[in-house]
Amino acid sequence: MAAPALDGIVVLDLGQIYNGPYATFLMAMAGARVIKVESLVGETLRGRGETSSAAYPFAMLNQNKESITVNLKTDKGKVLFRKLVEKADVLVENFSPNTMAGLELGAEALLEVNPRLIYASGSGYGRSGLHRDFLAMDITVQAMSGVMSTTGMEGMPPMKAGPAICDFFGGVHLYGAVITKLFERERTGKGAIIDVAMQDAVLPTLATLIGAYYYKGREVQPRTDNRHPALTMAPYNVYPAADGHVSIICVRDSHWRSLTRAMGRHDLLEREDLARMADRASKMEEVDALVSEWTAPRGKQELLHAMQAEGVPSAVVRNVEEVLADRHLHDRGMLHDIHHPVLGDIVLLDSPLNVAFGDAVEPRLPPALGEHNSRVYGELLGLDKAALDELAAQEVI
Amino acid sequence: MAAPALDGIVVLDLGQIYNGPYATFLMAMAGARVIKVESLVGETLRGRGETSSAAYPFAMLNQNKESITVNLKTDKGKVLFRKLVEKADVLVENFSPNTMAGLELGAEALLEVNPRLIYASGSGYGRSGLHRDFLAMDITVQAMSGVMSTTGMEGMPPMKAGPAICDFFGGVHLYGAVITKLFERERTGKGAIIDVAMQDAVLPTLATLIGAYYYKGREVQPRTDNRHPALTMAPYNVYPAADGHVSIICVRDSHWRSLTRAMGRHDLLEREDLARMADRASKMEEVDALVSEWTAPRGKQELLHAMQAEGVPSAVVRNVEEVLADRHLHDRGMLHDIHHPVLGDIVLLDSPLNVAFGDAVEPRLPPALGEHNSRVYGELLGLDKAALDELAAQEVI
Repeated sequence: MAAPALDGIVVLDLGQIYNGPYATFLMAMAGARVIKVESLVGETLRGRGETSSAAYPFAMLNQNKESITVNLKTDKGKVLFRKLVEKADVLVENFSPNTMAGLELGAEALLEVNPRLIYASGSGYGRSGLHRDFLAMDITVQAMSGVMSTTGMEGMPPMKAGPAICDFFGGVHLYGAVITKLFERERTGKGAIIDVAMQDAVLPTLATLIGAYYYKGREVQPRTDNRHPALTMAPYNVYPAADGHVSIICVRDSHWRSLTRAMGRHDLLEREDLARMADRASKMEEVDALVSEWTAPRGKQELLHAMQAEGVPSAVVRNVEEVLADRHLHDRGMLHDIHHPVLGDIVLLDSPLNVAFGDAVEPRLPPALGEHNSRVYGELLGLDKAALDELAAQEVI
Repeated sequence: MAAPALDGIVVLDLGQIYNGPYATFLMAMAGARVIKVESLVGETLRGRGETSSAAYPFAMLNQNKESITVNLKTDKGKVLFRKLVEKADVLVENFSPNTMAGLELGAEALLEVNPRLIYASGSGYGRSGLHRDFLAMDITVQAMSGVMSTTGMEGMPPMKAGPAICDFFGGVHLYGAVITKLFERERTGKGAIIDVAMQDAVLPTLATLIGAYYYKGREVQPRTDNRHPALTMAPYNVYPAADGHVSIICVRDSHWRSLTRAMGRHDLLEREDLARMADRASKMEEVDALVSEWTAPRGKQELLHAMQAEGVPSAVVRNVEEVLADRHLHDRGMLHDIHHPVLGDIVLLDSPLNVAFGDAVEPRLPPALGEHNSRVYGELLGLDKAALDELAAQEVI
């Protein structure tokens, strides 16, 4: 088999929780050597423990990485770290904005050590601007960015998207930014400083919502539940089934005609007043009632197959258990069965990019804290066992 | 100024609506030459019209691109297109899985024309597996992937995240995949076929939800509204303010102590039974009531500043209008004022990657349909005006 895409690239991963670690997860799975650089107690997510609800995310995000420890608050630790930087192509961190500079390990200082280094920061609001020092986590960026105000029901409080979308939008943009600069470095030979904000990264997803705002005369629109943000499409909703819910969207008038066929309602096909999108949108309540009348007494799988057979964009609403059991996702290589020492037999996610390349790999569980100290410090810095024992005794590693 | 990162890269953009066009938007803004290849009536989003709610997303996603037309259903159109493929580095499309192959322009065929081509497909579920032919849009992938079942309130129907997160997760992973293969091509000289599924791309965001499922004995958890998916953190919620809402998250016990200081509630600081995360989580109703009692009568900005001053991760819930007016985002270069011929004075988003590189640029409105026919067909294929007039008369371009 050919070498993977990022073969030979060395990444120092100071990421914690989700944002940085997702970027370096994508790198590790694409073949980079990712060295997770942790404090002597481990990064935050590891610190929550193997029996906590964080055990799964930690296992997922730290596959195929090595782990070393170093105490960056000691002088000897800083010296060790700078020597690692000399050997690295990429450094990723998502501490709060002043942390690395406060340790005398800021981006500019490290680029002096290694001018080819790609130094990549992830943060909530970025390293510049009025809000740079605002403490941020996924839920707060969902609030500030507009995600929350545009999710939920009219007249009810704003609603968080369940998944950690801001952390992961930040993380995948961080990945994209790093690889872009690695590509550029092939031509220029130069390193770079990268500053990805979770808030910046999630803003483009609001395109429809911003479009609705301008379209409706610069009026902030009420939340629309599961309907189209500008209420300009119908059917477009989540509908009840006998055993759950289905979602249906008719992007074109032909989809509506297909849906009436799936429903066996040829009478609706003949209703001129429902033939065009704008007319259906203006009669949204009636349209949704007609569709619900068909869906409510039927099973969701039956509904799905009837609609897909006629070419209607449609889906069943699936819970986490159904997703983890999905044959399609297993066959595609996105989900793997694996035995975890504490969680037991679990289903672990692969990298969406590996799957995209046709390179889905067997999963490898995350490293124990400091598991690769001797390998990394030995191979990269040439330290022998005696030197490592001394550093350990001094609580440097 | 140095050449941008993707200088010299030629991209044929057959993208439509959001998924493909977001990937090529990121490429265009990073300096690639992105040629939007449209049918003679334009891509779907353009087709919804300049006075529709789609006008804004179209303007945002197609900045800095060129537009050419070609009728790929004609033999002459196919010939022209294959000649363009010879000159291209990247092709991006997000048609349904059989479309390109049905036109005899599938990935394998085009890689024979140009073995260095990166052929990148975006789709709902991917080009392999049981569900490959399921028709998909953002709302249906939110349903199938588990996003919807984990958003909303217990006992109420599942809820869509307001923004188009599946389209954009698909798009940014597509970008990351293409640049990864461009980087690899520097070493191997070989093109690649890329198959990014929106569903694969959004799954990692479910990490906490899957973690909660395994943690709670493999039980599907009820939706938790704005609370932590595993109910293991408190405070973690959206709280009422006198003029809106704020969100607060205490990741560590020290955040709780900081919050009690911001609240002026030194008595709470002394309550041993609330000092530890697990204890607060078990008394979530009481903790949330205590916090709400403080937030409800106060203004959201006052609350935010009191909390940030004490180091509590916190935010105000902002609507689209507030986000578009955000000074921080304008100063950072993520938002630009621009005059749109139909929408008037609007705020346009930059690329999160450009901002990350410190390369925010003046926005450039999207091209008219076929605006660059003579430039592109002239420069790249050497066709003169007479040849182009003839192709236009034959409705090939």
